Amino acid sequence: MAHENYLYQMRDIKFAVKEWLDMNKLLSCDAYKDYYGIDDIDAFLDVNFKVCRDVLCPANKEADDPGCKFVGGDTQAVITPEVFKNAYNTVCEAGLGPQFSDRSAEGRMPLVWEAPILEMQSGASPSIVMFWCLTAGACTVIQHNASEELKERFLPKMYSGEWGGTMGLTEPGAGSEVGAVATKCFPTDTPGLYKIKGQKCFITSGDHDLASNIIHLVLAKTPDAKPGTSGINCLIVPKFWVNEDGTQGAWNDVTSTGIEHKMGIHGSSTLSLSFGENDNCYGWMIGDGPVDGRGKGMAQMFQMMNEERLNTGTFAQGCIGSAYYAALDYCKMRVQSPKFTDPKGPSVRIIEHEDVRRMLLFQKSIMEACRALLYTTYFYQDLSHDAADPAEREYYDDMTMIQIPLCKAYVSDMAWISTEQAIQCLGGYGFIEEYAPAELARDCKIYSLWEGTNFIQAQDFNNRKTTMKKGEPMKKWVAQIADFLATKKDPAFADEFAMMDDAFSAYNEILSTKEAWRASNPQLVQLFATRMLHAASMMICGKLMLDQALLAAKKLAELGEDHFDAMFYKGKIATARFYVMNVVPGVFGTLKAMKVADTSAIDMPEEAFM
Amino acid sequence: MAHENYLYQMRDIKFAVKEWLDMNKLLSCDAYKDYYGIDDIDAFLDVNFKVCRDVLCPANKEADDPGCKFVGGDTQAVITPEVFKNAYNTVCEAGLGPQFSDRSAEGRMPLVWEAPILEMQSGASPSIVMFWCLTAGACTVIQHNASEELKERFLPKMYSGEWGGTMGLTEPGAGSEVGAVATKCFPTDTPGLYKIKGQKCFITSGDHDLASNIIHLVLAKTPDAKPGTSGINCLIVPKFWVNEDGTQGAWNDVTSTGIEHKMGIHGSSTLSLSFGENDNCYGWMIGDGPVDGRGKGMAQMFQMMNEERLNTGTFAQGCIGSAYYAALDYCKMRVQSPKFTDPKGPSVRIIEHEDVRRMLLFQKSIMEACRALLYTTYFYQDLSHDAADPAEREYYDDMTMIQIPLCKAYVSDMAWISTEQAIQCLGGYGFIEEYAPAELARDCKIYSLWEGTNFIQAQDFNNRKTTMKKGEPMKKWVAQIADFLATKKDPAFADEFAMMDDAFSAYNEILSTKEAWRASNPQLVQLFATRMLHAASMMICGKLMLDQALLAAKKLAELGEDHFDAMFYKGKIATARFYVMNVVPGVFGTLKAMKVADTSAIDMPEEAFM
Repeated sequence: MAHENYLYQMRDIKFAVKEWLDMNKLLSCDAYKDYYGIDDIDAFLDVNFKVCRDVLCPANKEADDPGCKFVGGDTQAVITPEVFKNAYNTVCEAGLGPQFSDRSAEGRMPLVWEAPILEMQSGASPSIVMFWCLTAGACTVIQHNASEELKERFLPKMYSGEWGGTMGLTEPGAGSEVGAVATKCFPTDTPGLYKIKGQKCFITSGDHDLASNIIHLVLAKTPDAKPGTSGINCLIVPKFWVNEDGTQGAWNDVTSTGIEHKMGIHGSSTLSLSFGENDNCYGWMIGDGPVDGRGKGMAQMFQMMNEERLNTGTFAQGCIGSAYYAALDYCKMRVQSPKFTDPKGPSVRIIEHEDVRRMLLFQKSIMEACRALLYTTYFYQDLSHDAADPAEREYYDDMTMIQIPLCKAYVSDMAWISTEQAIQCLGGYGFIEEYAPAELARDCKIYSLWEGTNFIQAQDFNNRKTTMKKGEPMKKWVAQIADFLATKKDPAFADEFAMMDDAFSAYNEILSTKEAWRASNPQLVQLFATRMLHAASMMICGKLMLDQALLAAKKLAELGEDHFDAMFYKGKIATARFYVMNVVPGVFGTLKAMKVADTSAIDMPEEAFM
Repeated sequence: MAHENYLYQMRDIKFAVKEWLDMNKLLSCDAYKDYYGIDDIDAFLDVNFKVCRDVLCPANKEADDPGCKFVGGDTQAVITPEVFKNAYNTVCEAGLGPQFSDRSAEGRMPLVWEAPILEMQSGASPSIVMFWCLTAGACTVIQHNASEELKERFLPKMYSGEWGGTMGLTEPGAGSEVGAVATKCFPTDTPGLYKIKGQKCFITSGDHDLASNIIHLVLAKTPDAKPGTSGINCLIVPKFWVNEDGTQGAWNDVTSTGIEHKMGIHGSSTLSLSFGENDNCYGWMIGDGPVDGRGKGMAQMFQMMNEERLNTGTFAQGCIGSAYYAALDYCKMRVQSPKFTDPKGPSVRIIEHEDVRRMLLFQKSIMEACRALLYTTYFYQDLSHDAADPAEREYYDDMTMIQIPLCKAYVSDMAWISTEQAIQCLGGYGFIEEYAPAELARDCKIYSLWEGTNFIQAQDFNNRKTTMKKGEPMKKWVAQIADFLATKKDPAFADEFAMMDDAFSAYNEILSTKEAWRASNPQLVQLFATRMLHAASMMICGKLMLDQALLAAKKLAELGEDHFDAMFYKGKIATARFYVMNVVPGVFGTLKAMKVADTSAIDMPEEAFM
């Protein structure tokens, strides 16, 4: 069933990208300065909006039901709904597909411009967007790690969308534990060419009929590989062989063994694949082959993985946004019950009821807070590549690395909560699949699971990212919140700054408690890792929202109350207030729980789980 | 797809009903004393368990997919999956169907014994259970309000399951605003007989092929009715006419106009119905007809509605339970990654990982806390009917009324959170429909919406239930928490009592803040109603869990560590600790938000929602 009416709005997106982030700084980098001014993003956003509204979102209906059909057979196992072809081709031809991953192209856009494009596409159809986003991820690995010859052979047709790409990490026995990969690669007489044998599962876009070939990136181990992640290699394994001249050859013994029946994103083709069932599957090693059983596959994949984690947050963001706009549309139209303050009066549109407004503003505040976090991170990522000063690049890379687990886990966790509030706004109709929120709630659940479950993000944030480079980057990350609170105080937001100050004190106690645990009882860090990730996310989002509110207040003062755009800034201020005053207080509950540091979950005998 | 493997466990259910609640008190009431001893529940639970395991849960697979099929036509518009017939008949013949609603039957069970039966049935198949539970609700209205003649004509065949029943409240324009009902009833020459005309929607079990007739209870207004809820009547409108001798007559012009495509409970037949399209639909008025345009329908329905709200919490509870047991089963089996404390060691079953244990114990604590709340409320409800002393009956009725909105809203809200944690425990497999949690998360969403949305519960709790009888019952309800904390302190649970004391102080501040708002700015009560309902639920659940832990500690001391049942009590203690130390602290965040009393959701101009 699913949603097909595209209601996405761009005002806050443009505020974030054009007014709030320091786009002058970014666009003055060599990569962009001869190509783009700040307003040039408008054309891209407008084209993307039209594609989302006129092509992607209407196609999404069939994406959810019937979704993709598994017919089996070696060469074309999955049939996508007919409307997907037009959607896929339109996106790729408009340059809105996998092209963004070409980070060496002249005139490429900054990633922070790609973020809203992805977000709006995901908001239009969380499943269809996967057909080019996985290709983009595969391209990233190839572009950064493969030989020039392999890049030339594969990338042009992947960037254009003629060929699709996948990430072949997961196996039935290797999910969170990537190092348990059992797929094997065997050297052949041709250097760089390996024979492949093994099974993969949960492969997004693992087979489909939108591209003439599928280029799988497969994690595999040589027979002499070291155990764990250090033995992993990454190979290019196409469905159909690709000759040296780039032409397509025979079937490469990659068999689709089944399609998953998922809770959501039914239009995304999630496959089990078998490589080399006929002993005739080959792939190219990316980069140099393994030395002493040590491969480079994990490091190669991780570069892509970080980008995919950030994109995953953006996909979740699209679900939050579309569900909110659907709820807003409904609440402005649905008439039910008199106002609480006028019980004898007429029935009113439900947006006039207090609790409905609370639910809508909650969703709006989550949407804008998560967007601020995501876009900031893309902005940092751009500067980590494009800033002229190496020290600056390093700083922004550190900040990117720290924020990526927040972007992935906080945004996807909040998507489950926020889409639920959208359902609730619709009352009984919220449970009906003809309305958007039901589908979006089902769809968004995948984002807390893939690309490393959200606990893996929490562990990454609280352990690896906290301690990297002796903890200096994390100190800087915390310090920028402190600096903001110390230097930006504004009497118009005195209550909000007071709340943030309180919350920041609590957060510092959280951090010192965690540091103490690291020495005394590191298991407690694990036990509270998810909650600490959420607390960190609330702190940074609170800061970013308040920063946006300061800018909005300034603009509002400049424009005056009667300006056509004044309403946006008023909304921004109210939304920031709501986030700081209603969401951020969650930090106090976490601190309270950490102070008592209950270990019953660890202490409890396994048999007592019943 | 859906789950078909029944993993429900009964140990905690038996603890709650047999060891913890004062069953001697209840069973010594006249209604039960000649029939039951405490252990007699075992046989019922055991039979019910076998029916759930062997019949309901296996049938649930087809309940979810394909679900019910709409074929149209007047007399049989909905075809249920073939396996439903056996499931329905087995339940009804075993006396586990609508019979429980016969509250005047000799030898009837107390409702607190029916609660686990419903819970376990919902845990087996959230959709199939609706076919008898709606019948039970309709029977309740008829039994309490209709004439002896109508009772004799309808109830026996409804109790036996030969006929089904529905609640015809909702219309396209009358959801939360029940008083907006547009369906009309016109007096005829026969006293008590009315002609019916109108549309209803979202009618659960509105048509199906499991019963030979469907008895609709329809809310309708006479042409001269007062506006709003006071003009509402409740009528018995069968699909096929029922003659005075109880035999079935001609089709009564009730047309099924469509079936809903829902997010979950696909096996439940949710219909749009049209009454009197051919001007030939009749119904019997329940009770005396309207006087001066004032009907009794709303009051009659509300009695049933209160029971259905309590049952709704129990249905949600079944989803929480089944999702937890599915997650537990998976986590005990799935091997992935070495222990955090032994990173070079072998990969272990994921139940050995800290965060997985946290997620499991969170689910277990929510399950047991919600169960304690629900069963206590059923127990109060029983005493409100069966206690000999009228003052005692009144007290327990008050307590029941206060707790029902918590049972309905808190349990259903937590179902969305708890089933999500079950999904998360399964990693990528959690998103796959072959595993139980995905379906249960989809299914459980209905419970926050129907029988009054959860905001309506919050409003009921914070306004009507708080102020009823000049607020005396609510004072008593709060006082019993205070009494418990003051009198039951135990050094073995010093930390937990300290946390509860702190939380109770915070809760008292919440209450006094609310009282101040009631005079100064009642809209704030609406704005925080949902959060205050959650805070109240956490307080009462914290108290109940700690009370259970005290009993468990006593039993454990009596039995000794080596007793086969010791593990249950250890688990109970750990689960109560976890709830108090990790869930209850949510109260502090709510207080913090209430202290700053942000009104941006009310103040914000509607146009600023964009």
